[in-house]
Amino acid sequence: MGPVAVLGAGTIGAGWAAFFALQGLEVRVFDTGPQAQDQLDTVMARARPVLQAQGLLAARPTVPLLYVEPGPAVAGAAHVQEALPERLELKHHVYALVEASLDEQCVIASSSSGIPPSALQEGLRHPERLLIAHPCNPPYLMPLVEISGGRQTAPWALHAADAFYRELGKQTVILRREITGHLVNRLQAALWREAVHLVAEGYATVEDVDRSVTEGLGARWAVCGPHRIFHLAGGEAGMAGFLDKLGEPVEQWWASLGRPTLDEATRKALVDGMADAAHGREPAELAQERDRAVLAMLAAKKRGEI
Amino acid sequence: MGPVAVLGAGTIGAGWAAFFALQGLEVRVFDTGPQAQDQLDTVMARARPVLQAQGLLAARPTVPLLYVEPGPAVAGAAHVQEALPERLELKHHVYALVEASLDEQCVIASSSSGIPPSALQEGLRHPERLLIAHPCNPPYLMPLVEISGGRQTAPWALHAADAFYRELGKQTVILRREITGHLVNRLQAALWREAVHLVAEGYATVEDVDRSVTEGLGARWAVCGPHRIFHLAGGEAGMAGFLDKLGEPVEQWWASLGRPTLDEATRKALVDGMADAAHGREPAELAQERDRAVLAMLAAKKRGEI
Repeated sequence: MGPVAVLGAGTIGAGWAAFFALQGLEVRVFDTGPQAQDQLDTVMARARPVLQAQGLLAARPTVPLLYVEPGPAVAGAAHVQEALPERLELKHHVYALVEASLDEQCVIASSSSGIPPSALQEGLRHPERLLIAHPCNPPYLMPLVEISGGRQTAPWALHAADAFYRELGKQTVILRREITGHLVNRLQAALWREAVHLVAEGYATVEDVDRSVTEGLGARWAVCGPHRIFHLAGGEAGMAGFLDKLGEPVEQWWASLGRPTLDEATRKALVDGMADAAHGREPAELAQERDRAVLAMLAAKKRGEI
Repeated sequence: MGPVAVLGAGTIGAGWAAFFALQGLEVRVFDTGPQAQDQLDTVMARARPVLQAQGLLAARPTVPLLYVEPGPAVAGAAHVQEALPERLELKHHVYALVEASLDEQCVIASSSSGIPPSALQEGLRHPERLLIAHPCNPPYLMPLVEISGGRQTAPWALHAADAFYRELGKQTVILRREITGHLVNRLQAALWREAVHLVAEGYATVEDVDRSVTEGLGARWAVCGPHRIFHLAGGEAGMAGFLDKLGEPVEQWWASLGRPTLDEATRKALVDGMADAAHGREPAELAQERDRAVLAMLAAKKRGEI
């Protein structure tokens, strides 16, 4: 496969670069920031054992090369992964700079979660090859990539991106219509809204709401999606049986869900509650613990144990 | 420990009975239905390997005894677990029958998710010992028990129930205020509402929405609750940093979340989409697969691997 160009070496860009390079692809990273090289080195070191545990580490990983001009970074590229800051005009500016140097059949995949692909592709010389490929963070660990085309995206571009990520071991979903936040961030926001409500109104502590997920719902959601859970709750009649029996109560529950705002009192309840829940441990330590646990679970899933 | 009485041998009641009996407790089950004994036998057989895999199987499991009168079932009991159908008047009727035979200090723990504990305890001779202890299904597999007191529940009863379940290897959360659906069913309803919206409005298939959970969010939620996830997304500043940086966008996402109803078109989209997602496999087979996977994950968590 030809070289992969990564635009932007922030957390997500460096994560993508490490993921590609450790699988043996030639990677060129465009970033003008003074800390780009450090960031790349740090993330490469963090990602290496993760790729290894997933069985994805190439016999000969490459080293991502850093470019301070976008044109040379993308010349001859087989795939462009854009991970610039979430500012539309900045992304458009860089797209204009790279399009001149880029093969017509090369997909430009934006990692954006907040800007619709139709807005991203406006004004491009070849809007049909622009799409969104949004990873879960960090991109070298989490399997999911959400692919979403805009109004002008060509089917061939969606298929090419889909094949590209799957070849590298990712699990892809292709959205049928674009929507802000795609699937993951919307579902996450929906769950968190009720989690915030339960804390803000004093029904439970931050720690207990979190534990109700890790010790209950989360263990199921890691292996069984929300629709399938209710399909299986419907017995032999499946989803239809569930809807007949519990459709009305579910609608009543929906109507009773909280609609919190992040006002001062709620922010304080969340910050104080999280401080209690952390039991004096720093975010960095908790993040390490999370990554170790997620990696162990994904590796066990990959081995077919889970 | 003294005998445990289980009122009702439906799915939840039989699940509780199996959980207690396989840990070696003396279990007395009250149920008047003709299928109660079969149900108990079936669930005992299903639960045995699950308890074994969790390291919870007693050297000498007991056999739950079936009673058709509630009084004798609870006489001398150390704990009463009520798992009757979700009808308030039925529960009140049976509570009245058992209270006369029951030690004053014995907790009555209802498995209800839909009836508030304050409503359950109305009219009881000793309302202070009535509380809710709601399991995730099946009770012999899932670690979480949600404990919720009503207006008249005594602190000693909450503490006694909490200690009882933790002694048996459960993870408990105690709600600070009662609320319909407790934590788990509300959080689950909140996630599913957006999952339904995404399907109903044609953004993604049932299968892809489910995969965005199992391949992305769920792997994190099994080890890291929704509040902690955003605490860690805030970097060194934790939750406060996250709220400063992303509080406003999150509120905008909340405002844009879907508010579907389960009308005919939506039901059809869910049923048809789930049929596609099942790829011809029956609910029973999918349920077995889910239970095997959840058990493997919980066992790995217990061994400290995840």
